[in-house]
Amino acid sequence: MPDSFLRIADNVASIAKGFQLRGWALGTSGNLSAVVEREPLKLAMSPSGVDKGELTAEQILMIDEHASVISAHHAKPSDESPLHIRIVKERGAGAVLHTHSIWNTMLSDIYAADGGLSFEGYEMLKGLEGVKTHEHREWLPILENSQDMLALADSIGETLGQHKDAHGFLLRRHGLYSWGRNLAQAKRHIEIIEFLLEAVGRTLFIGNRRQK
Amino acid sequence: MPDSFLRIADNVASIAKGFQLRGWALGTSGNLSAVVEREPLKLAMSPSGVDKGELTAEQILMIDEHASVISAHHAKPSDESPLHIRIVKERGAGAVLHTHSIWNTMLSDIYAADGGLSFEGYEMLKGLEGVKTHEHREWLPILENSQDMLALADSIGETLGQHKDAHGFLLRRHGLYSWGRNLAQAKRHIEIIEFLLEAVGRTLFIGNRRQK
Amino acid sequence: MPDSFLRIADNVASIAKGFQLRGWALGTSGNLSAVVEREPLKLAMSPSGVDKGELTAEQILMIDEHASVISAHHAKPSDESPLHIRIVKERGAGAVLHTHSIWNTMLSDIYAADGGLSFEGYEMLKGLEGVKTHEHREWLPILENSQDMLALADSIGETLGQHKDAHGFLLRRHGLYSWGRNLAQAKRHIEIIEFLLEAVGRTLFIGNRRQK
Amino acid sequence: MPDSFLRIADNVASIAKGFQLRGWALGTSGNLSAVVEREPLKLAMSPSGVDKGELTAEQILMIDEHASVISAHHAKPSDESPLHIRIVKERGAGAVLHTHSIWNTMLSDIYAADGGLSFEGYEMLKGLEGVKTHEHREWLPILENSQDMLALADSIGETLGQHKDAHGFLLRRHGLYSWGRNLAQAKRHIEIIEFLLEAVGRTLFIGNRRQK
Repeated sequence: MPDSFLRIADNVASIAKGFQLRGWALGTSGNLSAVVEREPLKLAMSPSGVDKGELTAEQILMIDEHASVISAHHAKPSDESPLHIRIVKERGAGAVLHTHSIWNTMLSDIYAADGGLSFEGYEMLKGLEGVKTHEHREWLPILENSQDMLALADSIGETLGQHKDAHGFLLRRHGLYSWGRNLAQAKRHIEIIEFLLEAVGRTLFIGNRRQK
Repeated sequence: MPDSFLRIADNVASIAKGFQLRGWALGTSGNLSAVVEREPLKLAMSPSGVDKGELTAEQILMIDEHASVISAHHAKPSDESPLHIRIVKERGAGAVLHTHSIWNTMLSDIYAADGGLSFEGYEMLKGLEGVKTHEHREWLPILENSQDMLALADSIGETLGQHKDAHGFLLRRHGLYSWGRNLAQAKRHIEIIEFLLEAVGRTLFIGNRRQK
Repeated sequence: MPDSFLRIADNVASIAKGFQLRGWALGTSGNLSAVVEREPLKLAMSPSGVDKGELTAEQILMIDEHASVISAHHAKPSDESPLHIRIVKERGAGAVLHTHSIWNTMLSDIYAADGGLSFEGYEMLKGLEGVKTHEHREWLPILENSQDMLALADSIGETLGQHKDAHGFLLRRHGLYSWGRNLAQAKRHIEIIEFLLEAVGRTLFIGNRRQK
Repeated sequence: MPDSFLRIADNVASIAKGFQLRGWALGTSGNLSAVVEREPLKLAMSPSGVDKGELTAEQILMIDEHASVISAHHAKPSDESPLHIRIVKERGAGAVLHTHSIWNTMLSDIYAADGGLSFEGYEMLKGLEGVKTHEHREWLPILENSQDMLALADSIGETLGQHKDAHGFLLRRHGLYSWGRNLAQAKRHIEIIEFLLEAVGRTLFIGNRRQK
C-alpha cells in the first residue's frame, strides 16, 4: 500500500470513531470513502458491517470504480459503495461521508413530501465550500430510500444534476450524504449540515410549525 | 480462567464503559453477559451494584445455568441473571445486554398499554440480524416490570415464544434487553434499538401524536 | 496528609471531571465533599471557583466542622461548605455531591410551588440505598434558593428532618444535592436522580402536562 | 515566541477541542483569542477555517491591533478578528471566545425582535464576574449578523457601550461572544451563558411560551 493510502485510511478511521461517539454512526451504520487515485479510480472505503467506534486503519479497503476490492482484504466493502462512486464522479469529490443521526433521520421523513428542505440565514452556512454569506439559501434534497443500490445511484446522479449547488442530500429515514475536496472538507460539510438539521428540528418543536 | 473468558470479560467491561458514558447505564444500572461455554452453560456476567463506568475485566463473574457463581469471586452476580439465562436458552444467544436509557424508559411507559411498539421504514433496521430491507416492520414487546425474577423470566420466555422474530424487548419503566450471536452483535442490536427509540420518541414530541 | 485523604481527593477530582463532561458542573458550578474523619469532623472539600474539568487531587482542601481550611492550602473552600457539613451531620453521610444540570435547574423551578416532586414506578429507584422495589415512591423536596448559607443550612436541616427517607433535594433554579455512605454511593444517587429528573422532564414535554 | 505565548496557545487549543467535543464549534466554526501584550496590542488568535477538534498550539497565530499576523505563520487569522480586537479594547478583556451552539443559534433568532433576552433568578448567574446573587438580572443583547466585519465591530462597540454590565452578546443565527480577564474566566462565562440559553430554550418547549 502506498503511504498516501495509509494516511488516508488512518484519517478515515479517526473520523469514523468521532462520528460513532456523537451517535451519528451507531449500530455499524454510516460509511466513509476517500479518493486515492483518479485514473483509474481507486477509493479507500470502509468495510461492511463494522462497528465504527472500533474501525482501524488496517480494515479500510481499496476498491475500484466497480466497487471491487483491489487491496489484499477478504472483507466486503460497504453495500453503499456504488453511491460513493457515483458522487465522486458527479461532483469530482475527493471524499464522501454518510451519517445516520437522529436528526437527519427525523427530518428526512418530516420533509420528504417537499422533496427537501432549505437552510437560510445561518452563519454556519458560510462553512460550506463556495458560500460567502449567511444570506445564502441551501437546498438539501431528500430522495426516497431503496435497497437497489444501482437504481439509487442513478437517482442520486439525477438529483445531483438538478441541484448543482447542493452540498449534500438526505435519503429518507436513512441518512445524510455529503462530500468535499478531501476528508477534512467532507467532515466539515457533514458537521455543518448535521448542525443545521438539529437547529431546524429543535425549532420545529417549539411551535409544531414548519420553519418559515 | 481460560483465555477466552479473559477476552470476553475484557470486551464486556469495555462495552459497559461505553454504555455508561452514553448515559445508558447510570447509577450502577444495566447488566451484561456472554456465553463462555454451552454444555454445561457458563456465562460471563457483570456483578451486582457496580458502577459500569468503573467496571474492570477482573470483576466479571462466571456463573452457571442456576446463576451461581463458579469463578473465584466473592461478589454477587446481577439480580437479573435469571433473565439473561432464559434469553440465552430461548434464543441460543451468545451475549445479552441490558440498558436503562432515558428514551427506553420513557417509551416503555408511553406504549405500555399497547403491549409494545413497532419500527418501520428505517434503514437502521437493516442492522438487525436477518433483516434485509428498511421495509421491515420490527415489533418491540413491552412487559410489565416485576421484582420476582423467576416470574419475570417466565414472562420473558412466553413473550419470546410469541414473538419469534423480535430482537429485543422492553421492561416497563425499566429498560431494554437485546442479544446477539456474540457481544459485537448484541451491542449492534442495542445501539440500533436505542437509536430507533430516540427517533420515535423525538418524533412524538413534534405533534404530541403517536407515530402512525 | 494521610493516605486516605489522598485516595479520597483523587476520587473527588475524578468524579468532578466526569460531572463536568456531562454538563452537570459547567462554569465552575457544583461542589463535592467526603468525610475524612468523624471525631472531630474533617471533610475533603472542593475549592471555590474552580473549573471542575480541571480539578486536581492536589487542589482538594481539608476543612473542619466550621468550614475552616485545616490543610496547607491558601484557597477558599466552596461557599456552600456549610450545606455539606449540615448534610453530613443530619444524615451521617460519608460524602455529599452537588450538581447544576439543565434538567435539575428546570424541574426545580417547574415544581417549586409544589415544594417538591415525586418519582414512582421506575426500576432506577432501586439503586437508591434502602429501596427494594420500583413500586417505591421517592419524594424530592425543593427549597427556595438563598445566598445566606447559614439560613440555607438551617432550612436544609429542617427539610431533612421532615423527610427522613429523602435521598436528595433541589435548591430552586440552583441544583441538586445528594449524598451517600461514601463517594461511590453518593455518585450513584446523583446519577439516579439526574436520570429520573431528565425522564420526568422529557415526559412533560410530550403533553405539557404533569406526570400523573 | 515568548514562553507566555506558548502557554496561552496551548490553553487556547485545549479550550477549542473541548468546545468542539460539546458541539459548540462544529464545521470549523467558533474562534478564540487571548491578549499576549497590551501596549502595543498583541493577540493570540485562532486561524481561519480550521477544525477546532484538531487545532494545535503551533497553529495559533499572533496578530496586532489591525488583525495583521505578526508571528511566522502563513495562515490567515479568523475573519472575525476585528470583533475580538474591539471587545478587548471596549472591555479591557484578556480573552474573547466565540461559540456556535444549537441553543445560542436558535435563541438568537427567537428573541431577535426583542433585541436580546434576560436571565434572572438562576444560581448559575453568580459565576459571572461581579455578580453576587442569583437575584441578578442579566441582559444578553442580540445584534443583527453581517459579513461586513468593520461595521459589525462598530455595532458591537455601540452595544457594549449601551450595556456596560453585559458579559456577552449574541449575533443573530450566528453565535455567542463572551470574554473575561483571562482564558479561564472567558471559558467560565461561555459555559454559564450556554447553560442558561439551553435552560431557557428547553423551558420554552414545555409551554411554547416565553419565559416570564
